[in-house]
Formats: sequence, C-alpha cells, structure tokens
Amino acid sequence: MEFVKNGSMLTPTGFRAGSSYCGLKRSCDKLDIAVLAAERDVEMTVAGVFTQNRFAAAPVKWCRSILPSDSIRAIAVNSGNANACTGEQGQRDAELMAETVAQIIGSRKEQVAVASTGIIGVPLPMDRVKTGLISACSELSDGFDAAENAAKAIMTTDTRPKYCALTVNTDQGKFSIGGMVKGAGMIAPDMATMLAFITTDVSAESADLRDVLTKCNSQTFNRISIDGDTSTNDSVFLAASGSSGLSLKYTQVKNNFRRALLKLMEYLAFELVRDGEGATKVIRVEVVGAGDNADAEKAARSVANSLLVKCAVNGEDPNWGRIICACGYSGADFLPEQVSLHIGETQILSGGMPTGKSAAAGMKEDVVTFRIALGEGSGKAVFHTCDMSKQYVELNADYHT
Amino acid sequence: MEFVKNGSMLTPTGFRAGSSYCGLKRSCDKLDIAVLAAERDVEMTVAGVFTQNRFAAAPVKWCRSILPSDSIRAIAVNSGNANACTGEQGQRDAELMAETVAQIIGSRKEQVAVASTGIIGVPLPMDRVKTGLISACSELSDGFDAAENAAKAIMTTDTRPKYCALTVNTDQGKFSIGGMVKGAGMIAPDMATMLAFITTDVSAESADLRDVLTKCNSQTFNRISIDGDTSTNDSVFLAASGSSGLSLKYTQVKNNFRRALLKLMEYLAFELVRDGEGATKVIRVEVVGAGDNADAEKAARSVANSLLVKCAVNGEDPNWGRIICACGYSGADFLPEQVSLHIGETQILSGGMPTGKSAAAGMKEDVVTFRIALGEGSGKAVFHTCDMSKQYVELNADYHT
Repeated sequence: MEFVKNGSMLTPTGFRAGSSYCGLKRSCDKLDIAVLAAERDVEMTVAGVFTQNRFAAAPVKWCRSILPSDSIRAIAVNSGNANACTGEQGQRDAELMAETVAQIIGSRKEQVAVASTGIIGVPLPMDRVKTGLISACSELSDGFDAAENAAKAIMTTDTRPKYCALTVNTDQGKFSIGGMVKGAGMIAPDMATMLAFITTDVSAESADLRDVLTKCNSQTFNRISIDGDTSTNDSVFLAASGSSGLSLKYTQVKNNFRRALLKLMEYLAFELVRDGEGATKVIRVEVVGAGDNADAEKAARSVANSLLVKCAVNGEDPNWGRIICACGYSGADFLPEQVSLHIGETQILSGGMPTGKSAAAGMKEDVVTFRIALGEGSGKAVFHTCDMSKQYVELNADYHT
Repeated sequence: MEFVKNGSMLTPTGFRAGSSYCGLKRSCDKLDIAVLAAERDVEMTVAGVFTQNRFAAAPVKWCRSILPSDSIRAIAVNSGNANACTGEQGQRDAELMAETVAQIIGSRKEQVAVASTGIIGVPLPMDRVKTGLISACSELSDGFDAAENAAKAIMTTDTRPKYCALTVNTDQGKFSIGGMVKGAGMIAPDMATMLAFITTDVSAESADLRDVLTKCNSQTFNRISIDGDTSTNDSVFLAASGSSGLSLKYTQVKNNFRRALLKLMEYLAFELVRDGEGATKVIRVEVVGAGDNADAEKAARSVANSLLVKCAVNGEDPNWGRIICACGYSGADFLPEQVSLHIGETQILSGGMPTGKSAAAGMKEDVVTFRIALGEGSGKAVFHTCDMSKQYVELNADYHT
C-alpha cells in the first residue's frame, strides 16, 4: 500500500473532473463549481454518509433520496453557498443542479448526486450555477490539473486544496483509492463534518460500499473537530468505477480495500484539521485504558473540544490542568486517582498526582500529543483537533459581511 | 421585593466578612483570601451545590462531606490556586484551611466550609494560606467595605467584583438575601460553574435550604456558559443566619424566599456572563415551543455554546444560519419547516424559511436576543452566554506562563 506522488481522486481510472467559476464567492475569479463524472458509459456505485443536523441542507436531502446506488453518473458541487435553510425553493434548486448535469451527460437526474458548502439561508443564484455547471462539464478531463482544480473549487476558508491517492498491490491485482476534502470551519464529529469525495477503481455493490465507508468514517472524519459545530451540509461520498477489474465481493480484496480506505481517510482527516480555520498546530488526543471504546471516545472528544485546552496549545502554555478538567466533565467513567497523562514524551500525571515535570517541551511540537490512561479497562480512541487562535475569531466574526 | 443600593452578602444580618492577601496571585498586592463568618454565637444553616466534574477539587470534596449542615460557622475561600488534582496532600490542605479558621473562631473544623479557584495541579503554599486566613479573620466586619473586599478577593480573571442584595417585605415581616459571585472563564452549565456565596437572614432547615438552592440553581447558574468548560471547583453556597426571625417552615415565607432567591441568582448569573473573559456582549437565547423543557434546554444550550454563533455576535455579523445550524445539531426534536427565529425585534425565519429581513440591527445591541420557536409544544428555556473575542484567546493562551 503506498501513497501516489501527485495522487488525486483521478488516480483511480474511470473518472473525470471539471471545474469553473460562476461568481458564488466574494473573489469573483475563484473556482466555485466542480463536477466529478464517470467516464463515458461507466455507471459508478456510490455510497454517502451525511450530517446528523436536523437542518440538513437541500443537497443532502437529495442525495439521501438517491443513494446508495449502482448507477450514478456524476456528482456536482458548488462552494460559496450551502443551499441550506432555503425551503422548497432550495429543494428544487438542488434537483435542478442534478437535472442540468444530467441533461449534459445524457442521464436521468436521479443519477447525479449534489453537494453544496458556504453561507446558510441564501437562495442559490441558479442562473449563474447553471452556467457554471455547463462550463465545468465542458472541461471534464482525467488530468492532474482537473483534479487539483476540483479540489480548489470546493474550498471555502480552506487555505489549500487537500487531496491524495493510494495504490494497493494484492495477489488478485492492483487497485487505487483517491480523494479530496474541504473543511476549515463548522467542523465537529458526529458525522462527516465536511465535504469529501473519494474514488476507487474496484467494483462493489452499493450496500458493501456503504458498509465499509460508514465503518471507516466512524474512525476518521467522526474523530476530528475544529470548533465543535456540526454543519448542515456535511457529506462524504465514495464512488467506485470498477475499472480495475477487482471486486469487493472477494474477502481478500475487501480486507485490503478497507485498510487502504481507512489510511486514505485518516490522511485526509488529518489534513483537514491541519488546515482548520486559524490553526497553527494539530492536537492529537489518545485515550487508553477506558472501560470501553465508547468511554474512551467521550473523554478524547471532550478534551479535543475544550476551548481552554485549544487556547493553551495556541500559546504553548503548559497549563495541563485544563486537559484533566475536560476529561473530568466528559461523562467517561474512571477513578481520578488512577489517571495518568503524558504530553509528548513527558509524564505529567501519575496515579492522579502531578509528577512535577514541566509540560513546556511537549507543547512546543507542531503536533501536540496528549496520552491519557484511565486505568479502567482496554477501551481506546484517538481524536484530532487544532488549536484555537485569534485568527479563528477574526475569520468568524466577519465571514458574512 | 427590591434591590438594595450597595447591597451585598452582608446586607442580611448575622454575617461578617474579612479578606487579606497572601501572595497567591501574580500581582502580589491583590486580595486572595476571604472568610465569610457567622456573627459570634450564631450557627448558620448552609447548603451547597457542586461541580459534576470527576476531578472535583479537594475543597469540593471537603464541603460534600460536611454539607448540608445547620451548624456551620464560616466559609473560607482562596483565589489564585484551585487545590485541584493535588491528591491526598490537597485533601489535607483543604482540611487544614478549615482547621485554621476553626481554631481562630473557636469551632470544630467540620463547621468550616472551604472553596478554592485558580490554577489546577499546583499544591497550595499552606504557610502563606494560613497567614492569610489568620489575617482575614482578624478583619471580620459587617461593613460594606468588608463585603466589597471579599468580592474582590475571590476574583481571578474577573474584571470587577460582582455582588448584590434584595429585601423582601412580607405579611410576616422583612427578610434579605445577598450574594457575591466570581466567574470569567472555565464556565459552563451542568452545575454551578463558578463560585457563589449567598446569604440570608431567614431561618431554615438544611434540607429545605438545599432543596430551594438546587431548584433555583438549575434555572440560573446552570443556564449560563462562557466557554463550555465545566470547572473542577464550581461551588454555590447558601447560608442562612435566622436573624430575621422568619422561618422557611412557613409556606408563604418559603414561596417569597424562592422567588427572591431566583431573582438574586438570575442577577448574579447575568453579571457573571457580562464579565466573561473577553466578553463585549451578552447573548440571550430563548427557546419556546419545544416538545418539553428538556428539549428547549438542549436547543438553547447548543446555540449558546456554538463558537461560530459567539464569533458572529462579536463581529456583529448577521450570519443567522449559524444559530439555526446549532439548533439543528442540538439533539432537540422538531421539524425544520416549523421553526421561526427572531433576532431582537426582527423576524428572520418563519416556517423554516428566511423572511429576507436583515439581522444586522439585532446584532448591534449590547444584549443580543435570539428567540427560537420550535412549533412542537410548550417547552421553554432561557440561556445566557457572552460573545467570543480575540481577547478570550489572548487571555487563555497565556494564563499560566
């Protein structure tokens, strides 16, 4: 299993991508429309996982009505406008996005998935979006530039496009997985929490694809957070073209595929956190020795979401009491006098008591690691987040105006 | 029922307070020790509610072991050091604080409650604390200055002392309630979330006092938040001297008392939020029409804790989609198409659809009000929080070093 140099969601064969700008963002020359399409005559198997937010956006509702499916021809995305909280008009607009692409590529609208990201509560300017979709479809290509431009077109406050690909050699032959992701703000676990588009050239039935996606998602995109806010538009898509000739039906392919997908999603999730709004550091929270994995996740999530912890990391302030405090209100079950804490290589707490060693060195790393041992059982979980900076507040005090 | 000019926790009779500085804070001339004591020969009935954090600090454990009680003689407090995560030594130190005061005022140590606030994980310098307690006890007085100094002595990053008092005239006679509070950071509901000391001159049995305190607390200090972090040291004390001659045993006194206590605690909770770390505005979140009160509280709490909402308010950014988004992931049960939202006087959302009106005016108020109607039933809740500013990050990136 290895990462491909300049790998992208177009590394697996059977896919093309196109992008365009139609003026949905403040900078009028920024890409804001992307289309991921199957090669001519190919029908993709596509599964998705979506936000748990009750105000699910119109594109999410549309996707839930058509996925999983083994006859998808394209996924159309816009950035700059979330098409959320836009009522029945928004629902018609999401369908119209699908229909516009369907007409161009010669399919039914139910064969086109849709995603949106950006401001909530503003109707999509459909004239511009239609023009943008037509333009993006006219650019469809399988070249590297097409993949990179698509990764740029889905960005909002992201500072860089985020994509990668893996190839896997197995006894049965070779297959690839690639993907792109956007994130930056309104990122919290308990579902996908951002937009991700993952491709592969294995063939798969939609139920199998959904199964493996859901499992890998719970270990990756559901274990990160930027600010604790779960968006209305979070969507993760996994599209399979089947062009490698390998099928998930075979156990060995499936096992290899699951491992590779997990690795790819781990990478994209890490990149997403590293590019969090205003982030200067990544924080890795490892909890071991919990009563069960659910308790470990509670404790890790609570520490990762603590504003005070995130501010301390931003200032490299060795104020480790905040980590212990966040663990203490997490709802996880443990005895304080059995807890130990490492920050980086340094043991700070042993049996619930300070060792007297300084947390300063561990706080200076680019990836700050907290390892918390609860002394209850064998439950464990890893969570990633980023620090909280003044730039985050600056960005979000003035996003809309 | 009326607020008393310059009212404090010494407005009800039967109490004295004293303060001192012993060098627990960075500025060596700041008050850091306060003692609230009963008048000579008076035994107070005292009830308390305490943090739910598993890493409850040593003073919280001490108080849980002695309260509620009808024979308390004093409450001793220090700021600058939380005496949390300090193991058995911390436990001995908390008891030693009680014992030191007990020796001076001539009582048993079990008649002295203790509270601490400040940095976690550092042992108390007991030599200095003892000197400070002796000095504070030598200053005990019932004058206004004594009350104001005590309110200053419990401050950490608070910018001002916070205190008030109410007098209530009833058919049975007059009684008073007074109190002081400190807050600023590490403030989240799900228990007291700060230190508060409330006094009254009614007489009460400890069980009755605890009952009314718990009820009023759930409506006030448990319905505010600064940063979503529940501290290890949160404590709310209610002390009754009985000097007014009125007893809670009488239903009419009890009803009047509960109303007055609720009002006083509402005021202190509001002041606490208004003085939140880096706060420039108060945010009032009202949820009505929820299926039940618990669901209303979920929705209100979720909006009040949303970083994106708090940043938007800081920048007066009319980005109301974030309010709706936070409501959507709160776990409260409702249909999006029945939701309405007012910001100040302006209706922004009706039947789940934007009205097209701007939220700008409502965002400019000093107290920004969100009124969310869920259209499910008659459940309601009010939550208070403050905005999130760059100053909060600045303060908390560099609290310890």
